[in-house]
Amino acid sequence: MAIQSLEDLFVHTLQDVYFAESHIVKKLPDVIDKAHNPELKSLLAAHLDESKVHINRLEKVFEALGQKPAGTQCPAIEGITKEADELMAEIKDKTTLDAALIAAAQAVEHYEITRYGTLISWARELEHNSVLELLRETLAEEKAADSKLMRLGEDKLNQKAA
Amino acid sequence: MAIQSLEDLFVHTLQDVYFAESHIVKKLPDVIDKAHNPELKSLLAAHLDESKVHINRLEKVFEALGQKPAGTQCPAIEGITKEADELMAEIKDKTTLDAALIAAAQAVEHYEITRYGTLISWARELEHNSVLELLRETLAEEKAADSKLMRLGEDKLNQKAA
Repeated sequence: MAIQSLEDLFVHTLQDVYFAESHIVKKLPDVIDKAHNPELKSLLAAHLDESKVHINRLEKVFEALGQKPAGTQCPAIEGITKEADELMAEIKDKTTLDAALIAAAQAVEHYEITRYGTLISWARELEHNSVLELLRETLAEEKAADSKLMRLGEDKLNQKAA
Repeated sequence: MAIQSLEDLFVHTLQDVYFAESHIVKKLPDVIDKAHNPELKSLLAAHLDESKVHINRLEKVFEALGQKPAGTQCPAIEGITKEADELMAEIKDKTTLDAALIAAAQAVEHYEITRYGTLISWARELEHNSVLELLRETLAEEKAADSKLMRLGEDKLNQKAA
């Protein structure tokens, strides 16, 4: 698809995030399996469920715009998860691996936070008012997931240090 | 380097961000050149200067830890800038390209925000108190750059819509 207008760019970015969310849904089960801390495991499992809801919401956004849901390759999310894969292969120590997984998951959240933020700003400009709430709900959940991961990382670390 | 402890992971992540900041310093001049809006150009130019300061601060952090400054390949930042390169090659319309560049720059900021946030949390845990302030200064600047880009995106769009 040639990108000739903000409308085209909006649809392209929807496809980028659709690919990213689907990629995360494929990757997360392995990460949950490799995590040691039970709270981290359950946090990631909850986020896997949430990500499936996000995919669903994106499908509703495509539909509202008269578009077929489709993904476009997203080198950014592939790069972020490639780093996580490398660390998972390399780190043997449990606590260190959990710390690396929390950081990797936060990097994913931040990618999604910036993309949904951009989509909301463009949806407002393009007056796609019917999709604003769907995008905002997901953005709020991504931000909450990032905060929970950060707190878990700090609590775990503080506990260990105490 | 084998990663066997949180200390190793901390140094590895410093190297990751050092690579990312250096990558951005190499990439930004072309982005500044391609941007049309003068405010966007000057915002990106200011961030190029800031990124050089961030590299300097990271070198001080390495030094404080008795480490030689070094980068380690960072597929995440490469993926994020690859997406930007693809969009720069494809989009001809000026306003649309500027919107894409703002979004790409915000994705870079968010990657850096999450990594510096993680580094600060680990530096606290590892009691590397002498480097905390250096990392916090950079994190504050990354967040400020993201906010300025967001506001510029919204002002520009609102202006156009008005």
